[in-house]
Amino acid sequence: MKKGDVWFFDKDIYIKEYASCVGVKEGEGPLRDGFDVIGEDDRFGESTWEKAECRMFETACRKAVEKSGLSDSDIGCLIGGDLLNQCISTSFAARDLGFKTLGVYGACSTMAESMALGAALIEAGLEEYVLCAASSHFCTAERQYRYPLEYGGQRPQTSQWTATACGAVILGKEGKVRIKAACPGRVFDPGVRDVNNMGAAMAQAAYETLSRYFKDGEKKPEEHDLIVTGDLSEVGAAIVDKLFRLDGVNLGERYGDCGLMLFDRQKQDVHSGGSGCGCSAAVLCARILPRMIKHELKRVLFCPTGALLSPLSAAQGESIPGICHLICLEDAE
Amino acid sequence: MKKGDVWFFDKDIYIKEYASCVGVKEGEGPLRDGFDVIGEDDRFGESTWEKAECRMFETACRKAVEKSGLSDSDIGCLIGGDLLNQCISTSFAARDLGFKTLGVYGACSTMAESMALGAALIEAGLEEYVLCAASSHFCTAERQYRYPLEYGGQRPQTSQWTATACGAVILGKEGKVRIKAACPGRVFDPGVRDVNNMGAAMAQAAYETLSRYFKDGEKKPEEHDLIVTGDLSEVGAAIVDKLFRLDGVNLGERYGDCGLMLFDRQKQDVHSGGSGCGCSAAVLCARILPRMIKHELKRVLFCPTGALLSPLSAAQGESIPGICHLICLEDAE
Repeated sequence: MKKGDVWFFDKDIYIKEYASCVGVKEGEGPLRDGFDVIGEDDRFGESTWEKAECRMFETACRKAVEKSGLSDSDIGCLIGGDLLNQCISTSFAARDLGFKTLGVYGACSTMAESMALGAALIEAGLEEYVLCAASSHFCTAERQYRYPLEYGGQRPQTSQWTATACGAVILGKEGKVRIKAACPGRVFDPGVRDVNNMGAAMAQAAYETLSRYFKDGEKKPEEHDLIVTGDLSEVGAAIVDKLFRLDGVNLGERYGDCGLMLFDRQKQDVHSGGSGCGCSAAVLCARILPRMIKHELKRVLFCPTGALLSPLSAAQGESIPGICHLICLEDAE
Repeated sequence: MKKGDVWFFDKDIYIKEYASCVGVKEGEGPLRDGFDVIGEDDRFGESTWEKAECRMFETACRKAVEKSGLSDSDIGCLIGGDLLNQCISTSFAARDLGFKTLGVYGACSTMAESMALGAALIEAGLEEYVLCAASSHFCTAERQYRYPLEYGGQRPQTSQWTATACGAVILGKEGKVRIKAACPGRVFDPGVRDVNNMGAAMAQAAYETLSRYFKDGEKKPEEHDLIVTGDLSEVGAAIVDKLFRLDGVNLGERYGDCGLMLFDRQKQDVHSGGSGCGCSAAVLCARILPRMIKHELKRVLFCPTGALLSPLSAAQGESIPGICHLICLEDAE
């Protein structure tokens, strides 16, 4: 059911299972106990970083299917994406996985986009089980978006650390966490041109999507136990908090950001925090969903954020447009 | 309704309106009378090729909305994609268009992916009108995937000419052409490594999706007036024809390829034919849909094909995986 800009799923659609696969640094962070697979190194047995990301993507997907007790033939289709040029992590993993595949691109908001579309396919009665996944890898992203790793470029304090991580969820008609609603984002461009300050570029998109959800969905922030943005990290999360305060709304302790949850910022030298498609996807699977299943969180707004730039658009003087897709999750028990 | 791998849309979902915007060379080709907007040059008033593609994308979308008689606020969301790194044509056009946006990536199969997902959103009751679009630009694609234009690289006869084109359709609950079914593709890799022979890389994916559709959808090729692949062009289309002949099926005159329809191959020096996301999208809007509305074609299988490589995957020795998504269109009158 459509209500303003919000999609409410009338059929009961659940997260049946989930899994995550991450790199070494992520596995040393505060969420280490929540990951299903932590790489021995960040190469995952492959000869290039890009092939490593692909293998990590495949590993998370296979783990989710294995944990679910479903067989491969039960999975209707895979909806997934990543940050690499031509989404090669997803495409090459999909080649090996063999599922029908729908590639999506929403930069670091991809996990929510894939879940919103996956839930829509089940709502429409077109699929029974949909596998949704998103990945990123520090070493592939760094050399594609910024500098060769060997260059050792200096990183300003506003910069974020792209997570080496993949999260995968299987949506279906049974499970312990329900997908209640989704609110797709609009592209919003506050005019930020600093490619080392993605948090500031994406923050207004998060504020915009959340505000629309509260208005059209007739919900209040205090009806949620956790409102978590994707990877705004320190700079961007502070902007979201402030924008809501200007509206007279105090998000308070219930507001968090996946980029601030994945790493220990003090000990792990990640500057403003984590980022990448895999950041919110892995935090969802390693932290948010396990807490919901333990009934520690009853209703969560999961709001991954994406910076829709390319190195070329930045070189041509363009500012950085942001987007934020929202998923409302509820404890179903 | 799901039937094997095929999505049948039970609610009546139609193409309400459509529009295309193309470059100079496309406007000089055999479909010249079908395009809504033909650029005076391929820059569309912009200072870079990438900004030009973005403007072309926006122009096609605005034209479709204008022709439909709808207002911007009627459009539920935009589903779109392109070939550029980080899908910047779509994202930056979406910034200016202002719709909720879901970015998709299926290389040159993107138009069918966006239409399949758009129809699913309407089937699920989540949106009333969805704008679906895909674009490509010769000058942006050439320098991103191959060589700088100024280099004047020699092109082998198997190579294709990336279309400077965007097609946009609005899906809704009324119109003259109905979207009856969709069949999402699997990633299929026949092991082709020649980046100048995309047709061969994608042909088996087209054969695979079509075969699944005929089997699961319980349809025969002869029940369709036109079966049209995306951009296999001369080399790939001949492979599809041959693969079906090996199964004892003669697709015959009803089989065509958008890459062979967009240009006059003899006069326009495009070697094997046209390609790019915009190729099938623009041929749909300039040729296929107008013929359906004139009742010259009653039932059409529109099957855009995508080559899921990146320059980096090719440089790392990977072969080129292909994908093909299918849309079944029917004259609704």
